[in-house]
Amino acid sequence: MFEDLSLIFILDITGILGFAFSGALVATRKQLDIFGILIAAALTGIGGGFIRDILIGDIPPASLLQWEYLSTPVVAALVVFFFQHLVDRLSMLVNIFDAIGLALFSVTSAVKAVEFGLGVFPAALLGVVGGVGGGMIRDALTNRVPMVFSGELYAFPAMVAASWAALTYTLGWNIWLIALPGAIACFTWRMVALARNWQAPRAREPRRDK
Amino acid sequence: MFEDLSLIFILDITGILGFAFSGALVATRKQLDIFGILIAAALTGIGGGFIRDILIGDIPPASLLQWEYLSTPVVAALVVFFFQHLVDRLSMLVNIFDAIGLALFSVTSAVKAVEFGLGVFPAALLGVVGGVGGGMIRDALTNRVPMVFSGELYAFPAMVAASWAALTYTLGWNIWLIALPGAIACFTWRMVALARNWQAPRAREPRRDK
Amino acid sequence: MFEDLSLIFILDITGILGFAFSGALVATRKQLDIFGILIAAALTGIGGGFIRDILIGDIPPASLLQWEYLSTPVVAALVVFFFQHLVDRLSMLVNIFDAIGLALFSVTSAVKAVEFGLGVFPAALLGVVGGVGGGMIRDALTNRVPMVFSGELYAFPAMVAASWAALTYTLGWNIWLIALPGAIACFTWRMVALARNWQAPRAREPRRDK
Repeated sequence: MFEDLSLIFILDITGILGFAFSGALVATRKQLDIFGILIAAALTGIGGGFIRDILIGDIPPASLLQWEYLSTPVVAALVVFFFQHLVDRLSMLVNIFDAIGLALFSVTSAVKAVEFGLGVFPAALLGVVGGVGGGMIRDALTNRVPMVFSGELYAFPAMVAASWAALTYTLGWNIWLIALPGAIACFTWRMVALARNWQAPRAREPRRDK
Repeated sequence: MFEDLSLIFILDITGILGFAFSGALVATRKQLDIFGILIAAALTGIGGGFIRDILIGDIPPASLLQWEYLSTPVVAALVVFFFQHLVDRLSMLVNIFDAIGLALFSVTSAVKAVEFGLGVFPAALLGVVGGVGGGMIRDALTNRVPMVFSGELYAFPAMVAASWAALTYTLGWNIWLIALPGAIACFTWRMVALARNWQAPRAREPRRDK
Repeated sequence: MFEDLSLIFILDITGILGFAFSGALVATRKQLDIFGILIAAALTGIGGGFIRDILIGDIPPASLLQWEYLSTPVVAALVVFFFQHLVDRLSMLVNIFDAIGLALFSVTSAVKAVEFGLGVFPAALLGVVGGVGGGMIRDALTNRVPMVFSGELYAFPAMVAASWAALTYTLGWNIWLIALPGAIACFTWRMVALARNWQAPRAREPRRDK
C-alpha cells in the first residue's frame, strides 16, 4: 500500500503547489507584500487539506506535521514574488493553477476519505469539499467572488474526479487508474470551460424587492 | 431514546431545508447559475451542522454519512431554480426560511451537545453556534452583511431556544416539550422583530479617526 | 506543572480580552448594536482558540467548557458599549488590542500544541495559526482587509513568539522565560511597526489584464 500511495503523496504536494501558486498570484494582484503573499499561498495551498482532515478525523492534520506540506507554499510564494515581473497573464495563470489544485485535491481527498473508512458516496463528497476548499478560503480572504459560485461549472468536474477516485479505490484498482483519469478529466473540463466561457443554466433575473 | 429522538431528526432535516432554501434564494438574487445555487444551498444547509459536529467531536459529521442530510439541500436548490419565477418577495422569504433554520438548529444542536456529554451552559452555547453557523457561512460567502450582526436581535432568540432545549433535555423531559416551545418562541420572535423592524440598543456614532 | 501553567491560563484570558476588545471596537465602528458587538467580541476573542483546539484535537474546545473563557468577551463587549463615547482613537486602539491578542495567543497556542504532543516546528506553526486566527475571523466577518495581509509584518512577529515558546517549553525552561520574551518581542514589534508604518517588500505593480 505504501508504494501505491506514494503517487497520491506526489499528487497531494502538486495540488498544494497549484493552489499555493493561485493564492500567491491573487495576493500579488491585490498588491500584498511578501508576507501577505506567503500567507495567501499557505492558506490556499493547505486550507482545503485542513478542512478535509478535520472532517475525516485525521487530527492533527498531516499537513501540519510534515515539512514537505509546509515548505511547498513557501516555494510558490517566493517564486511568485521574485519572478512576478515576468508574468503577463495573471488571471489566466490563477485559473490554470487553481484547476491543477482542484483536480488533484479532489482525487487525493476522496482516496484519503476511503482510507479512513468512509463509503463511496460520502468519500466522493469529501473529495469535492477538499477540492474546492482551498479556493474558497483564498476567495473569501481576498474578497473575490468565490470561484465555486462563478458559473463556470466548477464543482461538477471536481465531483467527477472525486467519484471516480472513491469508487475505484474502494474496488481496489491500480493506483494510476484511480488517480489519473478523473484528475485529467476534471482539469481538461476546467480548461475547456474557461476557454469557451461555458455557462451553466442560470436562474431568471430576480425581481427587485429591496 | 431512539423513538424520542426521531422528532429531533425530523427537526434537523427541516432546519437544513430552511437554511438551504435561504441559501438558494440568496444565490438566485446574486444571479448565480444552477451549480452556484446548489453549492450555496448545501453550504448554508449543512455548514452549521458541520461546525457543531466538529466542535462536539462527532467526526466524521453525521451529515456527511446520511443521504437524508445530503439530499435535502439538493431538493431546495432544484425547487428554487425551477420555481424562482413564481417568487415575488425574495428578501422576506430569505428571512422566513432563515428563521426556520435558526430556530430548529438551535434546538437540535443543543440536544446533540447534551447527548455528547456537555453541561447545560456549554450545550446552550453550542446550540447558538449551530443555529447561527449556517447563516454566517451563507452571508460570508455571498458578501452580505452577516445577519447575525444585523441589529435584528438574531442571536438572542437562538440562545433562548438552545437554553430551553439544553436544560429540559438534561432534566429528561418529554421530547416535544424540549423541542417545541423554544423553537416556536425563537421563530415567533424573529418574525415579530422583522415585522416591526426592532432594533437593539446601538452604540453612539463613533468619531471619524481615519 | 499545574502551577506553572496558571501563567499560561492568565495569558490566554488576557489574549481573549485583547482580541475581544478589538472585535468589539470594530463592531462599534461598523455601527453594530449591542448584540452585534457581543457576537463580534465573542467570535474574535474565542475564534482563534477554537481553530487551534480543533487542529490539535482538544475537542470539545476548552473555551466552550470554562466560564472564564466565555465571560471574558461579554465583559469586553459591555465595556466598549457603555464607555465607547470616551474613546477617541478607535483605529489605534483596535491595533493595540489586536497586538495584545496576537502576542499572547501565539505563545499560549504554541505551548498547548507542545502539550498535545506536537514537535517544535509544528507547534510553532500552530502558534501562528492560533495567534492570527481571531483577527482573521474578525476581519472576514466585518469585511475589512485582513490585517494578516496588511503589509505591516503581522505574521512574522507571531512566528517569533510562537517559535520561542514552542522551543523553550519543549526544553522544559521556566514558564516565565517561555512566555514573556516572545510575547513582549511580538507586541513591541507590532507597536514599532505601526508607529513607523513599516512596510515589507512588496511585489511589483502587476499589469492589468482584466
